[in-house]
Amino acid sequence: LFSEYLTVYFTFLLISLEGLYFSDGRRKVDYVLVFHQRRHSSIRCPVGTSVSQDRLSIVSNGNFPQSVSSDAVAGRGGGMPGEEAANAGEVFMELGFAGGSEPTEPADHEMRLIRQEFEANLLEAGLEIERDKEVSVKAHGPSFTRLHAPWPVLCREAEFLKIKVPTKTESGFGSSMSTIWRKLNQPFQPKVPHQDHERTKFLSHCFSRDKLHLYNITSKDTFFDNATRGRIVYEILRRTVCVRTCQTIGISTLIAKGVYDAAFPLHDVSVLHEEWARYSAFYKYQPIDLVRKYFGEKIGLYFAWLGVYTQLLIPASIVGIIVFGYGVATVDTDIPSLEMCDERLNFTMCPLCDGACDFWQLSTACGTARASHLFDNPATVFFAIFMSLWAVLFLEHWKRRQISLSFSWDLTGIEEDEEHPRPRYETILLQKRQRKQKKKKNKKKNETAIDKLTWKDRLPGYFINVSSILFMFGLTFSAVFGVIVYRITVSALMAMSPDPETKSNVRVTVTATAVIINLVVILILDEIYGAVAVWLTELEIPKTETNFEERLILKAFLLKFMNAYAPIFYVAFFKGRFAGRPGNYVYVFNDYRMEECAPGGCLIELCIQLSIIMLGKQLIQNNIFEIGIPKLKKLVRALKDKGSAETEKEEERPPQQWNLDHALAAFEGLTPEYMEMIIQFGFVSLFVASFPLAPLFALLNNVIEIRLDAKKFVTELRRPVAIRAKDIGIWYNILSGMGKFSVIINAFVISFTSDFIPRLVYQYTYSQTGTMHGFIDYTLSYFNVSNFKPGTAPQNSGDITVCRYKDYREPPWSPDAYQFSKQYWCVLAARLAFVILFQNLVMFLSLVVAWVIPDVPKTIMEQLKREKKLLVDVFLREEKEKFQLIQRPTQAGDGGGGPRARCRAASFSQFTRKNPSTLPRNENENSRHTAV
Amino acid sequence: LFSEYLTVYFTFLLISLEGLYFSDGRRKVDYVLVFHQRRHSSIRCPVGTSVSQDRLSIVSNGNFPQSVSSDAVAGRGGGMPGEEAANAGEVFMELGFAGGSEPTEPADHEMRLIRQEFEANLLEAGLEIERDKEVSVKAHGPSFTRLHAPWPVLCREAEFLKIKVPTKTESGFGSSMSTIWRKLNQPFQPKVPHQDHERTKFLSHCFSRDKLHLYNITSKDTFFDNATRGRIVYEILRRTVCVRTCQTIGISTLIAKGVYDAAFPLHDVSVLHEEWARYSAFYKYQPIDLVRKYFGEKIGLYFAWLGVYTQLLIPASIVGIIVFGYGVATVDTDIPSLEMCDERLNFTMCPLCDGACDFWQLSTACGTARASHLFDNPATVFFAIFMSLWAVLFLEHWKRRQISLSFSWDLTGIEEDEEHPRPRYETILLQKRQRKQKKKKNKKKNETAIDKLTWKDRLPGYFINVSSILFMFGLTFSAVFGVIVYRITVSALMAMSPDPETKSNVRVTVTATAVIINLVVILILDEIYGAVAVWLTELEIPKTETNFEERLILKAFLLKFMNAYAPIFYVAFFKGRFAGRPGNYVYVFNDYRMEECAPGGCLIELCIQLSIIMLGKQLIQNNIFEIGIPKLKKLVRALKDKGSAETEKEEERPPQQWNLDHALAAFEGLTPEYMEMIIQFGFVSLFVASFPLAPLFALLNNVIEIRLDAKKFVTELRRPVAIRAKDIGIWYNILSGMGKFSVIINAFVISFTSDFIPRLVYQYTYSQTGTMHGFIDYTLSYFNVSNFKPGTAPQNSGDITVCRYKDYREPPWSPDAYQFSKQYWCVLAARLAFVILFQNLVMFLSLVVAWVIPDVPKTIMEQLKREKKLLVDVFLREEKEKFQLIQRPTQAGDGGGGPRARCRAASFSQFTRKNPSTLPRNENENSRHTAV
Repeated sequence: LFSEYLTVYFTFLLISLEGLYFSDGRRKVDYVLVFHQRRHSSIRCPVGTSVSQDRLSIVSNGNFPQSVSSDAVAGRGGGMPGEEAANAGEVFMELGFAGGSEPTEPADHEMRLIRQEFEANLLEAGLEIERDKEVSVKAHGPSFTRLHAPWPVLCREAEFLKIKVPTKTESGFGSSMSTIWRKLNQPFQPKVPHQDHERTKFLSHCFSRDKLHLYNITSKDTFFDNATRGRIVYEILRRTVCVRTCQTIGISTLIAKGVYDAAFPLHDVSVLHEEWARYSAFYKYQPIDLVRKYFGEKIGLYFAWLGVYTQLLIPASIVGIIVFGYGVATVDTDIPSLEMCDERLNFTMCPLCDGACDFWQLSTACGTARASHLFDNPATVFFAIFMSLWAVLFLEHWKRRQISLSFSWDLTGIEEDEEHPRPRYETILLQKRQRKQKKKKNKKKNETAIDKLTWKDRLPGYFINVSSILFMFGLTFSAVFGVIVYRITVSALMAMSPDPETKSNVRVTVTATAVIINLVVILILDEIYGAVAVWLTELEIPKTETNFEERLILKAFLLKFMNAYAPIFYVAFFKGRFAGRPGNYVYVFNDYRMEECAPGGCLIELCIQLSIIMLGKQLIQNNIFEIGIPKLKKLVRALKDKGSAETEKEEERPPQQWNLDHALAAFEGLTPEYMEMIIQFGFVSLFVASFPLAPLFALLNNVIEIRLDAKKFVTELRRPVAIRAKDIGIWYNILSGMGKFSVIINAFVISFTSDFIPRLVYQYTYSQTGTMHGFIDYTLSYFNVSNFKPGTAPQNSGDITVCRYKDYREPPWSPDAYQFSKQYWCVLAARLAFVILFQNLVMFLSLVVAWVIPDVPKTIMEQLKREKKLLVDVFLREEKEKFQLIQRPTQAGDGGGGPRARCRAASFSQFTRKNPSTLPRNENENSRHTAV
Repeated sequence: LFSEYLTVYFTFLLISLEGLYFSDGRRKVDYVLVFHQRRHSSIRCPVGTSVSQDRLSIVSNGNFPQSVSSDAVAGRGGGMPGEEAANAGEVFMELGFAGGSEPTEPADHEMRLIRQEFEANLLEAGLEIERDKEVSVKAHGPSFTRLHAPWPVLCREAEFLKIKVPTKTESGFGSSMSTIWRKLNQPFQPKVPHQDHERTKFLSHCFSRDKLHLYNITSKDTFFDNATRGRIVYEILRRTVCVRTCQTIGISTLIAKGVYDAAFPLHDVSVLHEEWARYSAFYKYQPIDLVRKYFGEKIGLYFAWLGVYTQLLIPASIVGIIVFGYGVATVDTDIPSLEMCDERLNFTMCPLCDGACDFWQLSTACGTARASHLFDNPATVFFAIFMSLWAVLFLEHWKRRQISLSFSWDLTGIEEDEEHPRPRYETILLQKRQRKQKKKKNKKKNETAIDKLTWKDRLPGYFINVSSILFMFGLTFSAVFGVIVYRITVSALMAMSPDPETKSNVRVTVTATAVIINLVVILILDEIYGAVAVWLTELEIPKTETNFEERLILKAFLLKFMNAYAPIFYVAFFKGRFAGRPGNYVYVFNDYRMEECAPGGCLIELCIQLSIIMLGKQLIQNNIFEIGIPKLKKLVRALKDKGSAETEKEEERPPQQWNLDHALAAFEGLTPEYMEMIIQFGFVSLFVASFPLAPLFALLNNVIEIRLDAKKFVTELRRPVAIRAKDIGIWYNILSGMGKFSVIINAFVISFTSDFIPRLVYQYTYSQTGTMHGFIDYTLSYFNVSNFKPGTAPQNSGDITVCRYKDYREPPWSPDAYQFSKQYWCVLAARLAFVILFQNLVMFLSLVVAWVIPDVPKTIMEQLKREKKLLVDVFLREEKEKFQLIQRPTQAGDGGGGPRARCRAASFSQFTRKNPSTLPRNENENSRHTAV
């Protein structure tokens, strides 16, 4: 399996030297556009034919200039220096030739025209284009258009995008780590070129063409790394319009319309593969800076987050193991479990089912009692509090890490990019506008222009949304209920079976099979819900991609969360609470008694449920869905390609990088990756009181998950465009919400699901000796066998007159027999009091923790101040010279500045604030000079 | 009272025409520095003598240039246009003369030198100075130095401070109010000049000397309003250094050192007085924009916040009145109070004190039972939930308002001003450095320079802080306990008195006097704690003023909150819970029984306590402390001045504005104003379940408070410098913390203090008929009189064998007599369950409310987009022309730009992002032109 990857990887490596450049071997391929030559029956561009008469001038809020088509040709290729411009022109001619030479069907022809215009506009924006020579020959295969951004274009766009680049000035980053710590840490550090990065950070600055002398430009080809180049080209692709042939803007719309099949930058194999995307590097830190350099900030942040989460799982796992160890160590001295196992105490329990079952001895449940103690002991309470604070700590730590990263990645002060509407939104808006226009023609009335969709347009979508979500909630609950019914019926049937072997294994068999059914249902529904959430979000017609993502995440989270946790919630809080009491059981379907918890308490069942679902979900989803299915898809794709290749038989040349990348799957966002982790975070935080080993299993999973995801991103997916992002967005809110929710859930688990409170109450109020002796007797109520309803008593009761059951009820000889006893209310009050105490204590502690830990690390604060000062020093020199120019107060319009002056201006004005005493004098001198 | 104010006001008005200008009648007085000619024994400037040999070059982080003293005189007055410079020069000569002519004592002479240097540096910074002619004559009175900032200085500083000024471009602010609503609203709008402000907002922009043609400059004298001028001069004063004579920076240090007595801008009476600072305007909106214009953003935000709070109290008051009305309406049909008043039921209650007291009939407590129902009814529960959500709503509403204001006041994107260290911090730092230096001389070792105080220096301060705060907590608790002891002893003594009249009024007398004692103690401690908090914060040596303020606020809040609420917490949650039961009472001092609640429940006592403390605190603090004491102080000051004036006898000239303003009290920050309101907010939110009328009383108070504060700011205090602020800072956190705290407090009040839960439990579980009949009987336990301890039984018990008391305990005939009964635990469980339910429900609803209400109002969002576009349009024209200049990519250093380019650059680059298709073409054309 791994060797296969390596083969692919080395193939990459070999061709990377030639595969990443234009045929001249000098110009880098920054982006690839792909389209298939196929026979479409119709094109999905709705304006294609009607545009000529209607001439809609506004498609989106990216205002179309009216004159764009008239001077499009005049301005083309303007930004390129001589030689390369000529080159590009040549390519353009070739393109024009290719476009005109081959007659195609109408739809295809239309698309060809659109491509032609779009690519012409790209040329006009300064990009250079290369296409396959054999494009006119191969009629059905994928066709590649390769784009290259020359230096002037890169410079221009970098300035507009305010891309920060390192200057020559070092700002000594005072690493706060001691030498010993660094030495100890050494084996865990990845071997990356810039390992000394932490100590020498170069001051960075918005790129500006004015200031080229400040930057460390060794070569114009490598100054902007490939990710930045890709981003710049994507930016141009995103905003390039296509007015004449298809009123639209940007590559994503064209892909949505089917004009192009795909657009992606090329992979360039880097050190990432060796030091990051390998399982054998599992114990090392991730080279996050390289990841960010290669994939952009958004993906970089995901891996950084995953790293922080995994790292913080280590202490949680250790404490979890200790807590579990405490349980193991004390199981032999725990009085309640000893009492339960003690056959001499001879508790005769009431039968577990009607008629068929017999009375049984409590000591036969010794095993579950002992197992129960492993998870249900006082240390668990401590662990629940610990984990609640851990969750807060994790979030705080991440906040700090995020700020550190946004500082060292120079993300401070970046603005939100204004987004274009999604293609679907535009299409619907256009349809609406056309409908309105037709109406207007009929009515001859002047109405205001429609520039957005209102809630009225979305109403059907919302309606379907709400009803679908309700339906799916119903589905989830039915699934849970179905499994309950399965358990009840099967155990009833098995209990009636004459085979004693079957009878004795009832509980184990039923529980195991039921949990597995649960797991399968969860896995299936999970996939379905994922798809449904996308479909539902499309129905809402969100305007922008960000909007879409947020709505999708919320919906998917809600559905998947319900799906994964509904059975667990049932076991934790509902199972066994509605079973009734001997003589007055609750029945479903008139025949089957509601299920009770195991004699050792519900917590052990919760624990089993939780561990199987958590482990099963992780193992199956990781192995089958994340490794297997992509492999399968790839295989299918390869087979299909081979099929089409065989018909043409012309694959003599070795595959180029773009062919290889095209063969990979498209990148589809980080939502599934985050979602998986968030659901896991739920297992770790929500019910951690019942399963202290959850952090350990999460840790083991994540160590693999990081490398798995890394491999996927490097070798299985096309390279995504580097997207800037300041934070992990809505995921942080979801995490923090889950952290808060976990407090109350754990409070309830400890007080209601576990036996912690009854034990405390017994020990401190009822116990005569102050010890736990007699606790089991105290928790069991008495039942007079003669009070069984006819037909429900065991057939061969023998001489037993009184049996015991687990509840706090009055004995048969009390005036109000079988009513809840005073103990019941007392324990209930204690349980509720514990919930209040626990919840408010933990909430208070969380607030304190969040308040004590400053959001911005101190070193960063100091470094920021230092950098401010350095920036001032750097720009002071040149500003001083220019200052005389500026000092003509009444004379307007001197000195251009332009956008690139912004960074400088800001830092300069900071200077003036910091050294107040120098500046005014300077100024005065200047003005005196000019006045004299 | 008011007429007196008016007289003062009109005096202001009359002199304002001449009093606000230099003697030439043309130059505005922007700032006044005051010093007294008095005989000091020593000056507090520690470097005064040692500076010559040590030559410390760094006093604070405001780096001193080494050359400042050498060219100080050379550069003076440089920035002024001819005529005025000459004028200033004359003034300077005069100053020099005044400085040299009169021989003074050493300390005084030193101060004179410092002033001389400081004022010389001010001149150098471009300010113009005027001093009283008779300054050399009057040896002991206050001396005024008046400052004027000429136009070039204003321009320069406005540019550096990035002050936003309106441009000529209107950005039609689409008011979302309908015409009808505006008509209805008309009477409540203040009559201010810019009433149409809401509809025509001028686009504003950072001031830049390049762009003067864009602004609406009708007159250079009035373009910057007086508050801005004051701020600009203050900025100069703040950063002007004084190196030669006293190594220090800024006016505040000089004031702290006693070189100057005061520094303030002058009041200029405006429309504020008529439309804002009058009680008769109480029903009107505040002219917040004018307030902000006059006092700056920080004070403007305070009044805006107060306005929002007061406005939102209106619905809360209305609902409160309705809830109270419900209580009044249902008091006659409430079965429990009817049963309590019913003499036929004949409940014989156990005596309220040992020996002296007799058995009593429950029906005699009918009054309190009925009163109790007014506040303790189901509507209260609704009201508690309502008020919790109201608190969230209030905070959300304020967030929106704050964003609206920061938009319309152009505060978006302002940076935090870098602050200079406080004078005290600098002094201590200097002392430390000197100590170290001496040590260094001895040891001849090169150590790193000391540039800040560490925790070691602050350790004693922290220690005193913690111990003092603990001591004051102790003090508060002792005060509460003292009042409890007072109540217990006095009621015991009165009960023993033979006079039946006294006996019958025990409870009323004791409660009333105790609450008044409480109130007095609270008021006294409040003042003490305020002073102590300042003292303690000084001990911590905070670095900056902001730091100081935050620490002070936290401390003062903690102390005052404890002080105001400790007795209320006692009554709500502790009173009567430790009283024991008949036959087993709890005693304090071996003799006095712990007090019990009134028969009607503790809620009525809580209500009395709360209302008296709240009302008393507001009335007394408002009237005596806020109106009376300043008046008294003024009187004292006036008498003193008159005394000194009489010795000199030369007050022939009418007092100038600066004389009048100097006679006012100094502005001492907004902390006390906020604090008062926050404590009030606590009364409104924390215990609102027990006193639904609290919002009403708060509303009444605040309506007056707004005008009272307004009057104070306009007529009683010197004009504060306009300070920029984006938000109300830490107060928001305190408010939101109180809102959260109030949820749990109200949950406990409803479930434990009120009778709500016992009634519910009775009605739904115990009551035979499902009604409340028999509730009183259910809440009273039985006590066998023979079980009284010897000597505690009433003397003349007659034939009574069994008496009743309010508790849930087993009757004497039960096997475990006098133990808590099953009912007790049942009710307790219900109470705790209610707390959990209430808390989580309200927290969830709060989250939903906060999530549903967007932080940024929609209109603002749209307006922001519109303004962005307008800004682009405005600057597009000129940028277009300059663009060719910029398009020389490799040629660095073209066109200055400087700080003023920042705004423009930002908006311009926004343009490029919005119209992506235009710009590249433009650029290409340009580069082609240059290339050709």
